[in-house]
Amino acid sequence: MSLELRQRIFEQLDAMWLIDPHTHIDPHRPAAKTLADILGYHYYTELAHSAGMPREQIEDPDIGPREKTARLIAHLGPVENTVQYSWLVEMAQSLLGFDGDRITLDNWEGVYDASESLMSSETWEQDVLRRSRLRRVFLTSDFDDLLEGFDTQLYVPCLRTDELVFGLADSAVRGRLEGATGVSLHAPADLRSALGTLFEHFTSRNARAVAISLPPDFTPERISAGEAARALEGILRGRDDGDSRRVWSLYVFWTIAEFCAEFGLPFDLMIGVNRGVYEAGVFQGQDLYDSRVSLIQYRELFNTFPQVTFPVSVLASVTNQELTSYAWIFPNVVTHGHWWYSNVPAFLEGDLAARLETVPATKQIGYYSDMYKLEFALPKFAMYKRALAKVLGERFVIDRGWSEQRALKLGRQVLRGNVDAIFGF
Amino acid sequence: MSLELRQRIFEQLDAMWLIDPHTHIDPHRPAAKTLADILGYHYYTELAHSAGMPREQIEDPDIGPREKTARLIAHLGPVENTVQYSWLVEMAQSLLGFDGDRITLDNWEGVYDASESLMSSETWEQDVLRRSRLRRVFLTSDFDDLLEGFDTQLYVPCLRTDELVFGLADSAVRGRLEGATGVSLHAPADLRSALGTLFEHFTSRNARAVAISLPPDFTPERISAGEAARALEGILRGRDDGDSRRVWSLYVFWTIAEFCAEFGLPFDLMIGVNRGVYEAGVFQGQDLYDSRVSLIQYRELFNTFPQVTFPVSVLASVTNQELTSYAWIFPNVVTHGHWWYSNVPAFLEGDLAARLETVPATKQIGYYSDMYKLEFALPKFAMYKRALAKVLGERFVIDRGWSEQRALKLGRQVLRGNVDAIFGF
Amino acid sequence: MSLELRQRIFEQLDAMWLIDPHTHIDPHRPAAKTLADILGYHYYTELAHSAGMPREQIEDPDIGPREKTARLIAHLGPVENTVQYSWLVEMAQSLLGFDGDRITLDNWEGVYDASESLMSSETWEQDVLRRSRLRRVFLTSDFDDLLEGFDTQLYVPCLRTDELVFGLADSAVRGRLEGATGVSLHAPADLRSALGTLFEHFTSRNARAVAISLPPDFTPERISAGEAARALEGILRGRDDGDSRRVWSLYVFWTIAEFCAEFGLPFDLMIGVNRGVYEAGVFQGQDLYDSRVSLIQYRELFNTFPQVTFPVSVLASVTNQELTSYAWIFPNVVTHGHWWYSNVPAFLEGDLAARLETVPATKQIGYYSDMYKLEFALPKFAMYKRALAKVLGERFVIDRGWSEQRALKLGRQVLRGNVDAIFGF
Repeated sequence: MSLELRQRIFEQLDAMWLIDPHTHIDPHRPAAKTLADILGYHYYTELAHSAGMPREQIEDPDIGPREKTARLIAHLGPVENTVQYSWLVEMAQSLLGFDGDRITLDNWEGVYDASESLMSSETWEQDVLRRSRLRRVFLTSDFDDLLEGFDTQLYVPCLRTDELVFGLADSAVRGRLEGATGVSLHAPADLRSALGTLFEHFTSRNARAVAISLPPDFTPERISAGEAARALEGILRGRDDGDSRRVWSLYVFWTIAEFCAEFGLPFDLMIGVNRGVYEAGVFQGQDLYDSRVSLIQYRELFNTFPQVTFPVSVLASVTNQELTSYAWIFPNVVTHGHWWYSNVPAFLEGDLAARLETVPATKQIGYYSDMYKLEFALPKFAMYKRALAKVLGERFVIDRGWSEQRALKLGRQVLRGNVDAIFGF
Repeated sequence: MSLELRQRIFEQLDAMWLIDPHTHIDPHRPAAKTLADILGYHYYTELAHSAGMPREQIEDPDIGPREKTARLIAHLGPVENTVQYSWLVEMAQSLLGFDGDRITLDNWEGVYDASESLMSSETWEQDVLRRSRLRRVFLTSDFDDLLEGFDTQLYVPCLRTDELVFGLADSAVRGRLEGATGVSLHAPADLRSALGTLFEHFTSRNARAVAISLPPDFTPERISAGEAARALEGILRGRDDGDSRRVWSLYVFWTIAEFCAEFGLPFDLMIGVNRGVYEAGVFQGQDLYDSRVSLIQYRELFNTFPQVTFPVSVLASVTNQELTSYAWIFPNVVTHGHWWYSNVPAFLEGDLAARLETVPATKQIGYYSDMYKLEFALPKFAMYKRALAKVLGERFVIDRGWSEQRALKLGRQVLRGNVDAIFGF
Repeated sequence: MSLELRQRIFEQLDAMWLIDPHTHIDPHRPAAKTLADILGYHYYTELAHSAGMPREQIEDPDIGPREKTARLIAHLGPVENTVQYSWLVEMAQSLLGFDGDRITLDNWEGVYDASESLMSSETWEQDVLRRSRLRRVFLTSDFDDLLEGFDTQLYVPCLRTDELVFGLADSAVRGRLEGATGVSLHAPADLRSALGTLFEHFTSRNARAVAISLPPDFTPERISAGEAARALEGILRGRDDGDSRRVWSLYVFWTIAEFCAEFGLPFDLMIGVNRGVYEAGVFQGQDLYDSRVSLIQYRELFNTFPQVTFPVSVLASVTNQELTSYAWIFPNVVTHGHWWYSNVPAFLEGDLAARLETVPATKQIGYYSDMYKLEFALPKFAMYKRALAKVLGERFVIDRGWSEQRALKLGRQVLRGNVDAIFGF
């Protein structure tokens, strides 16, 4: 019974049109050009490298997309068990007409040729959006992005603030900030002025959120203007002291939260990543984490900004219970998707079950794809929808005696309804 | 097969008479008077608040119970998915004759009227106890509770020591201690004298346990008499130094453990809560936690007091494996219920499975309701019994080939038998 | 469907011949002599003690094996629920012809007599190996083990380095090192010389790995020769300062990793144990842990030694996600079995699912028995194979639509194929 039930619920969920509330899509090149763009996704390069393929082979600047594809395919055998690999196959089946269950040295050329042919179509981007039932796709935009030349109703800007918070000690980043805002950073007030310009620009271009990814040891706190001024001075003088950088980061972060309050924008917190842990890793395949992080570190932030909605993502599943508890208690904390290393069924299903059972239904943003190319929304959302159907079927319909309709309503709300409500569509 | 099996095991477990080994019942007002007392349970006020209801509306001192009910019901729609909400509905179905699956603005008045009518009956308290099959209910009594005017065989006192350990820096608490014991606190020896009086009083009134809830950073250690004296002096002089308070708390805690040894009382440790994290939260809806806690912090305590049984509750499910391992190794460590943020099926089922598979059957106290009003034992225990039936059916009968009878025997032992054995009935 | 599927997969896995890549077998006395050797396994003595049996009764030096068995059996009733107990029963059923489901005071003598009779057979060791389908069994050999008098193709040496890393402050250990290598420790260079001799000796005797168990707070780092020299001097002068010992341990550990690189040996890291937490516990029943450990502590090690394969075991299930993520990213990190307190179905199944879904199939060593006597490989591997069949059936065949054959191939690879590949058979 349970399998048919899951299937019925999945099909209903799968018929919905979606908004993807967090991606890394480049709106000027949203879709892949060939299979090489697909295989260039860090999930495949890092797994191939982890399984033994030298980085130099992967990142060889002298090869074209066909050769790159051939090389990677030759090394994917050991990762065929992974759910990350299953995204590739499901994408190829759904969008490229592939009918196998593995892409190997024996059959890759057909898939490559199909990708080249289909993806070069003028309608490919729209085809992918339609077949993935994507209504809107959030971007993660650099602070100095002009946000021009694309439809901001479809590709919804989101202000990424990592560089502002952690990068202003770098004069190049300060130069870009000056370029984008006309403000040169000499005093804390200049930051406020620059941020005001950025927030005006982003909201005028339909931005619906501000986002940042944070290391496990980050603990937001209010910094006085005096401390901030001293920290900025230290940074501008090029003093390589961690303390100035740390204090300044805290000040920038807090000021951004104030602007979120002023502009009514949700502030997406993606908590827990350590950058560059594996130094010799492939591009985007170097980051890991320390799971010893707690949302208690965000206590002061959550208390100080009741008017700001914080969609919170956590990197490690062991932090998921804290996330559910904080979202259960704090009106301004919302659960947000299943991030990166936790975005696999073995962790996602349990994390999802805990949220559905304990957090108000209005305060759960079910999923985002985190994709770099449009083609990945379909298989990643499909994985989530299967997990959602499984949890709704087994834990709500069977264990708690809910009707399928009631379970479906909850599923639709976390999958789509809350995205509309929280980001204002 | 598995569903029928679960149902059969559940029904057998459900027929048992229970002892609830940890509640916050007021023995002078054990049952609710109207539905407002039910909805006043912090699980509903905090969830309604989390979902958007202003605290001022919830805690408005100028409204009566009917209005309070109406207001809360109007805000429960977003939390209907939660298992906490399911307790409310199951309670209404089982005790108030409600036959719907949601209490809404359309039907709440009938439920309210039924509650008013039924709960005003002179036999209501006994009716609830009987229909919940509750033989005894543990209290969590303030240290200066007279423990008079109720049947201590039914409402079994338990000495709550939070205020003694963490509150004696407050002169009002010291005054209450003096009032209860005739002892004025000037030196560590006075504490011993006062505690002796309290333990005599409590055990003479059938107390079967001592209990405390502890923050995640608490690490019990033995404090010398000299250190304790200096700490007490600091406190009495009103020095607002954390160190005196910290040392004195450690000293009081350790001395209480000594009295537990002397009086043969189990010492319930409820480990991991941070109080007042969400400052603007509703009454009892402000506490959260930092899941970075370890039972290694209790190493010295467990080693020093082999003769004291420590029923241990942990707030976060990520600590459950440590709890199972410490109970597997230390003869004096016993697993105790599923506490608060972990008292939901998504966490409870896995935590329970790990305990049943690894900890001696005699060392597991399955469940307590933690309730403030008697009406909640029924639905909360029902949730636990369903989880217990699921785990026994799936992991013991199916996975390990046990007979149903053998599984049931284990279920009965953790549900009831161990409560009798450990608390001495 | 699911149960028959699991059973079919289990039977196929169960037919395989195995290599057990981590045990504590004494190759001179690999099998038990009577049931007392079985019940002397710390899992039974510590559980019996935890359930109330005094250590003195268990470790009474004046009793023989029959009396020891009688005493322990009398105290195993309370632990019959545990999976550890199920190993005992399955072993007795499979190897001793026992046909009950519990060994009690009523039937133990028959089991004991059978054990005495069967185990005294000259072919018992070979019988157990054959019925357990064990092709090879890894040892955990002391650094000064002569590795003589046994077949190193069957009992494969593994150099245990705990004493080298943590024990050289003890002059007796230094004496043993000098005895084994002819090198007296006066300067860091002497360590290098001694280790060279040990690695030569071990590899000449077919050693395939180096192993160590590590406390949760251990963080490997490179130590300069000068620091190492000062630390060694402190140790040799008997200064009881923790810092010299700490630095010297780090230096020895790092140097061992260098030798692993030079000799091409995998370095098994068993991360997370605190020794002697329960001071009054039975032999080998005193160790516990602090689950607040992170693989980020091994960042420098993993980066510095890309040529060394690190099969990593973690003690607590909450560290399993980090293990999967680090194995997913670092080419030289491999998941290794399910260790000790996590070696129970409630944790193992989820941990295994996460690995199978996210880590390259080539980088997972499924299981080792950790046994002290050969008789335990059969029931412990059977438990693992059941979990593996369950996860493959439910999460791969059912949830992901894999064929049984494909799932079986993955199962065989983690159960056996990777052991061959990683340890070089």
